[in-house]
Amino acid sequence: MPDGFKSDYIANYLGGESTDNDIYVDNLSSLSGSTKKSISFYNDPKFKDDLLSTKARIVILKKNDVDLRKGASIIVDDPYLAFAKLSNLFYQSHKSTLIHENASIFTNAKLGVNLYVGAFAVIGSKVSVGDNVYIGANSVIGDNVKIGKDSIIHPNVTIESNVEIGNCCEILAGARIGTSGFGFAREIEGNWLKIPQVGKVIIGNNVDIGANTTIDRGALDNTIIHDGVKIDNLVQIGHNCEIGENTIIAGCAGIAGSTKIGKNCMIGGAAMIKGHITIADDTIISGGTGIGKNVENPGKRFTNVFPYNLEHKDWLRISKNLKKMGKKND
Amino acid sequence: MPDGFKSDYIANYLGGESTDNDIYVDNLSSLSGSTKKSISFYNDPKFKDDLLSTKARIVILKKNDVDLRKGASIIVDDPYLAFAKLSNLFYQSHKSTLIHENASIFTNAKLGVNLYVGAFAVIGSKVSVGDNVYIGANSVIGDNVKIGKDSIIHPNVTIESNVEIGNCCEILAGARIGTSGFGFAREIEGNWLKIPQVGKVIIGNNVDIGANTTIDRGALDNTIIHDGVKIDNLVQIGHNCEIGENTIIAGCAGIAGSTKIGKNCMIGGAAMIKGHITIADDTIISGGTGIGKNVENPGKRFTNVFPYNLEHKDWLRISKNLKKMGKKND
Amino acid sequence: MPDGFKSDYIANYLGGESTDNDIYVDNLSSLSGSTKKSISFYNDPKFKDDLLSTKARIVILKKNDVDLRKGASIIVDDPYLAFAKLSNLFYQSHKSTLIHENASIFTNAKLGVNLYVGAFAVIGSKVSVGDNVYIGANSVIGDNVKIGKDSIIHPNVTIESNVEIGNCCEILAGARIGTSGFGFAREIEGNWLKIPQVGKVIIGNNVDIGANTTIDRGALDNTIIHDGVKIDNLVQIGHNCEIGENTIIAGCAGIAGSTKIGKNCMIGGAAMIKGHITIADDTIISGGTGIGKNVENPGKRFTNVFPYNLEHKDWLRISKNLKKMGKKND
Repeated sequence: MPDGFKSDYIANYLGGESTDNDIYVDNLSSLSGSTKKSISFYNDPKFKDDLLSTKARIVILKKNDVDLRKGASIIVDDPYLAFAKLSNLFYQSHKSTLIHENASIFTNAKLGVNLYVGAFAVIGSKVSVGDNVYIGANSVIGDNVKIGKDSIIHPNVTIESNVEIGNCCEILAGARIGTSGFGFAREIEGNWLKIPQVGKVIIGNNVDIGANTTIDRGALDNTIIHDGVKIDNLVQIGHNCEIGENTIIAGCAGIAGSTKIGKNCMIGGAAMIKGHITIADDTIISGGTGIGKNVENPGKRFTNVFPYNLEHKDWLRISKNLKKMGKKND
Repeated sequence: MPDGFKSDYIANYLGGESTDNDIYVDNLSSLSGSTKKSISFYNDPKFKDDLLSTKARIVILKKNDVDLRKGASIIVDDPYLAFAKLSNLFYQSHKSTLIHENASIFTNAKLGVNLYVGAFAVIGSKVSVGDNVYIGANSVIGDNVKIGKDSIIHPNVTIESNVEIGNCCEILAGARIGTSGFGFAREIEGNWLKIPQVGKVIIGNNVDIGANTTIDRGALDNTIIHDGVKIDNLVQIGHNCEIGENTIIAGCAGIAGSTKIGKNCMIGGAAMIKGHITIADDTIISGGTGIGKNVENPGKRFTNVFPYNLEHKDWLRISKNLKKMGKKND
Repeated sequence: MPDGFKSDYIANYLGGESTDNDIYVDNLSSLSGSTKKSISFYNDPKFKDDLLSTKARIVILKKNDVDLRKGASIIVDDPYLAFAKLSNLFYQSHKSTLIHENASIFTNAKLGVNLYVGAFAVIGSKVSVGDNVYIGANSVIGDNVKIGKDSIIHPNVTIESNVEIGNCCEILAGARIGTSGFGFAREIEGNWLKIPQVGKVIIGNNVDIGANTTIDRGALDNTIIHDGVKIDNLVQIGHNCEIGENTIIAGCAGIAGSTKIGKNCMIGGAAMIKGHITIADDTIISGGTGIGKNVENPGKRFTNVFPYNLEHKDWLRISKNLKKMGKKND
C-alpha cells in the first residue's frame, strides 16, 4: 500500500484539475496545521491568512481562488466535499496489515486478507471477518460474530456473540454491541426475573457507531441498524429497535426498546425516544427533545427545548406560574 | 455440565406438563429464529404463523393452544414467565469453565471453583472470587475486590479496588464500578482541589448493571446498591448514593451524589435526579423527568416530559408565550 | 517511596500542629471506616460518635475540638481541606512503579522514570510519557500521543493517536479521548459522507476526566481542554470544542461540536449545550438545562428544569393547557 499520493492522481480521483503534477503528499490537514507533505483545502475567506501562510504542499480550492495561492493547487467545484472524499483514500492507504502476536484468536475463526488485529484483541469461536478489516487493541469479538469487509473496529470495543456487522462500518472506541437487553418480569415477591435475551444485533453496510455507545441485542427478535445509519457517542439503543437507512443520531440520545425509526431521520443530541413507538421517515427531532408517541406523518419536525436561554430568575417566575396553570380556582 | 435438557426435565423444572418425553433441546429462541434443537414459547395469537412454521423442537404454550401445535409441547399457565425461568437454567449449563492462559492473576487472589476468566483479564492483589463466577476478556478487577458466587462480569469491565459485589450479579460490558467520585473543593485561586475518595461501592445480590454504566465509590462512606436492583446501560450513579432493594433504573438516567433512593422504585430512561436528596419507596419517575427535591411520601408518580409530541412550530408559539408568563406588565 | 508518613511530617505538610510525634499512618479513611494505621478528620458535630469510637491513629481537627479526642491529633484551621490536601501525598506514595511484562510498548516510545504500566496496556509508536505517570491495565495509548508527568490513566481507557495530555491529569476508567468527531456531509443520494477528522485533542495540566466520558478530536482544528478543567462521568464533548480554565462539568452533560465555553463555568449534570455557540466566563448552567444560544455576559445563571417535583397528574393538567397556549382562538 502506498503511503501517499501524487497531485495528478488525486486530481483525477476527485474529478478536478491539478496545477502541478508529481507533487507528493501523505497526509490531510487544516491549512494552519499542515506540514510539507500535507494536502489541505480552502473554502472560506475567513481562512485567507491561513491560505497565504500554509505549509501545505497542495491546496484544494475553487477556480476563483487560484490566484490567491502561490503553490500547487487542485481546482474543484466544492473543495470541502472533495477534501471529505480524500478521507477514505488516505485512510485506506495508511492502515497497516498485521495480526499482533499477542492477539487471542480462536482457531476456528474465518479470517479475510489484509487484516489488522491489535495487541490483546480477542476473537471468539466461529467468528467470520472479511477482507481489509481493522480490529483495534483490547477489543473483544464474541462467538459467532460476522464482520463484513473494510470495516474498522477501534480499540476497547465489545461485540457480544452472534452480532452481524456489514461492510465499511466504523465502530469507535468503547462501543458495546449486542449487550443483553433490559428485560425483566416482576415476580409476586417484588423481585425482577430476567427475560432471556436471545436475539441478535444486525448492522448493515456503511454504518458508523460512536464511542461508548451501547446497542442491545434483541430479546427474541433482532435489533436492526440499516445501511448508512450514523450514530454518535454515548447513545443508547434498546433491544428490538430498528433504525432506518441513513438516519443520523447525535450524541447522548436514547432510544428505548422496540421502537422503530424510519429512514433519513435526524435525531438531535440528548433526544429521548420512548419505547414501543414508530417514527415516520424524514422526521427531525431537535436536540434534547422527548418523543413519547408515534410519529405517523413523515417530514415533520419536533422540538420541546427552549429556543432562548432562560435565566434562573426568570424561570423561577415562569415555573411558579406553570404550577398553577389550569387549576380550577385559578 | 450438560449442553441441554430433555423435555421431561424441563417440564418438571417449570411445573408444567410435557406432551412428549425424551425430546432434547440445547438453546432458547424465538419461534421464527429457532433451529431443530431449540425450545421456544407461544403466548400471543399474532405469532400464530410463526408457531405453525417454527423449527423449534419444543414449544411452551398454554393448554388452550396445544391443538395448534404439531410437535412436542410443554403446557404451562404463563408461557412467557416459564420461558424467562429457563434463562438461568440454560445460561448456567452453557458457561464454560476455563482460566485463560493469558489472564493476569495476582498470586494471592482467592479463587473459587468452576470459574471462567477470559483472555487478558486482570485480577489484582487480594481479590476474592466466589464459585461459578464468569469474568470476561479484558476486564480489570482491582485490588481487594470481593465477588460473590455465580456472578457474571462481561468483557471490558473495570472494577476498581475495594469494591464488593454479591452473588448472582450480572455486570455488562464496559461498566465501571468504584471509579473516583466527583468531589472537589475550590481554592481561593479558583482552581479545584480533589477530595479524597476513599469509600467503597457495595453491591448486594441479584443486581444487574448495564453496559457502560458508571458507579462511583463513596468519598468517605460507601455507595450502596441493594439486593435485586436492576440498572440499565449508560446510567451514572454518583458517590455515596444508596439504591434500595428491587429498584429499577432505565438507560441514560443520572443520579447525582449522596442521593438515597428507596425500595421498589421505577426510574425511567434519561431521568435526572439531583444530589443530596431522598426518594421514598415505590416512587415512579417517568422517563426524562427531573427530580430536584426530596420525595417524602411513597408510591407517587412524577413526570415533566410532554405526553404528546410537540411540533417545532407549535413549540415556538408556546415558548414565546412562556417567556412572558407571570411578568407584571403582561 | 514510603508506604506512609509520620504525624510530624504530616503536620508540617499541612501547616498544622501535631499533638504527638512519630505516629505512623499509611491510609486515609472516614472516622468509621478507619483501621489502626488510618488518618481521618473531624469537622462536623454529627460525626461526634464516630470520633469517639474511631480506630484512626490520627485525627485532623480544629483547635476547639481537640478535647473531644483521646488519641493523636493534628490541629488545623480547615480539617476537610487539610484532608483533601493529603490525597496527593498519599496517592503518590502508594503508586507502585512497574512496567508489566505483558504490556505492549512500541520500541520507539519515549518513557520517563517511575512509571506504572499495567498488564495488557498498549503504548503506540512515537508516544512520549513523562515521569511518574500511571497507565492502567488494558488501556490503549495511540501513536504520537504525549502524556505529561504525574498523570494517571486508569484501566480500560483509550487515547487515540496525536492527543496531547498535560501534567497532573487524571483520566478515569473507560474514557475515550481523541475519538473521531461526528462530521458528515450529505450527498445527493441521501447517504452521508464522512468528513476527515484530522485535528487533535489538547488537554492542559490538572485536568480530570470522568469514567466513560468521550472527547472527540477536532475536524481540522483542535479540541482544547484548558488547565484545571474537571469533567465528570459519561460526558460528551464534541469536536472542536474549547473548555476554559477551571470550568467544571458534571455527569451526563453533553456539549455539541465547535462550542467554546469560558473560564470558571459550572455546568450541571445532564445539561445540554448546543454546537457552534460561545458561553461567557463564570456562567452557571443548572443540571438538566439546555443552552441553545450564545451567552454573552459573564456570571449569569441559567435554568430550565422545574424547581419542584411535578406529580404526574398535575403535569397532565399543565401540559394540556400548555398545548393551547398562545393559540389565536383560545
